[in-house]
Amino acid sequence: MNLILFEEYECGLPLPKRDPRAVHLLKVLHKTVGDYFDAGVLGGQRGLGRIERVNSDGSIEVSLDLREEPLPRLLIRLAVGFPRPIQVRRLLRDMANMGVEAIDLVGTELGEKSYRDTTLLTDGGAREALIEGAVQARDTLLPVLAVYPSLGAWLAARPWHSGALLIAADNVRPAGIFSRLASETRAVVIAVGSERGWSEQEREQLESAGFTRLSLGKRALRTETACVAAVALAAQG
Amino acid sequence: MNLILFEEYECGLPLPKRDPRAVHLLKVLHKTVGDYFDAGVLGGQRGLGRIERVNSDGSIEVSLDLREEPLPRLLIRLAVGFPRPIQVRRLLRDMANMGVEAIDLVGTELGEKSYRDTTLLTDGGAREALIEGAVQARDTLLPVLAVYPSLGAWLAARPWHSGALLIAADNVRPAGIFSRLASETRAVVIAVGSERGWSEQEREQLESAGFTRLSLGKRALRTETACVAAVALAAQG
Repeated sequence: MNLILFEEYECGLPLPKRDPRAVHLLKVLHKTVGDYFDAGVLGGQRGLGRIERVNSDGSIEVSLDLREEPLPRLLIRLAVGFPRPIQVRRLLRDMANMGVEAIDLVGTELGEKSYRDTTLLTDGGAREALIEGAVQARDTLLPVLAVYPSLGAWLAARPWHSGALLIAADNVRPAGIFSRLASETRAVVIAVGSERGWSEQEREQLESAGFTRLSLGKRALRTETACVAAVALAAQG
Repeated sequence: MNLILFEEYECGLPLPKRDPRAVHLLKVLHKTVGDYFDAGVLGGQRGLGRIERVNSDGSIEVSLDLREEPLPRLLIRLAVGFPRPIQVRRLLRDMANMGVEAIDLVGTELGEKSYRDTTLLTDGGAREALIEGAVQARDTLLPVLAVYPSLGAWLAARPWHSGALLIAADNVRPAGIFSRLASETRAVVIAVGSERGWSEQEREQLESAGFTRLSLGKRALRTETACVAAVALAAQG
């Protein structure tokens, strides 16, 4: 944990003894009363926390002095064909770590239908993974997460800034190669298919919606690896 | 498995019934006698395999027709401060997936000493992770893996092509930002520190050895994420 993150409603309340953040402060960082630590409020400011008191029940009272703005977001929206549940967690963590603005999980024709049934999205697992990634980056903001049943539904919703650069990762039938495409002022939308890529129909849908198909190279990358590589390239514009 | 990979010594021998590749061919891909599949020999050619016969003991006899060269390697050598064992596996898999030429695991001053004691390097786990990444990319070549006790030892060994572009990832005290730096003809060496980054002494060592310190941005990325991002940027030069 590079930052001890509090929910808004927790501010002013003591951290319970067994709370992972309390354990991290006392057992991993070896902090004690009077010590400072990096802190932030989810969705809000960042700054310093201070351990004021350890209560007799082991809970910790802290004070917060938060004057720093959250880190700037990358103006990048990533849509990705539903990966297998174990990958969704890592994907969300990595994308929150890199600071993308939004993540859309999209059902695709060649994607495994059963992957969409993951409980991660309803049991708090997704949020936990996003928080883990944000905390790694010392950030307090999370990407906005949404789910669409199909590429068509996503394209119809057009959940992006108008004028955004629209890119679909496609190393089977690319029209060019990925490279630094973004600028600091222009939003980028990147669509990454499922493991088996895009269907021909989806390629047509993407093309009609104004997406350019670009290759990340000759190698079939794992979904999470392709997403990290694509965001890294788009972010360095 | 995007490719069924054989060791040289296995060619001509039947695949045992419970071999994961046999299980994958018959149960996942639903292949049967006469069917073709993507195949390759570790360190050698790629092409097609054919199931010739399923023996009474369940083992599979295959023939191989391998005429394709392995995929070209990225002229990238990645040195990374020993990550925790669970991360080493993913790092090796991802780097083999992306096709880097070599991976050096290096002890660093701020890295956790105990991470170096991983058994992955001696129990076959590292090789298995490299193979998993190569197979994902339909490749037959693995990055060369080496271990160095310290950054100093690695810098003294200079295990890179002369004339290579030398980069150290450093978002604490960078001299510039990462961007597309490689060219198809110039080798790149990228050094990524441990989770806590470089010590001042290591920064000096890197500078003396000709490394430029470049930032991947304001966010502290996880080690594997930083490696994938850095390789993606260097590979697209």
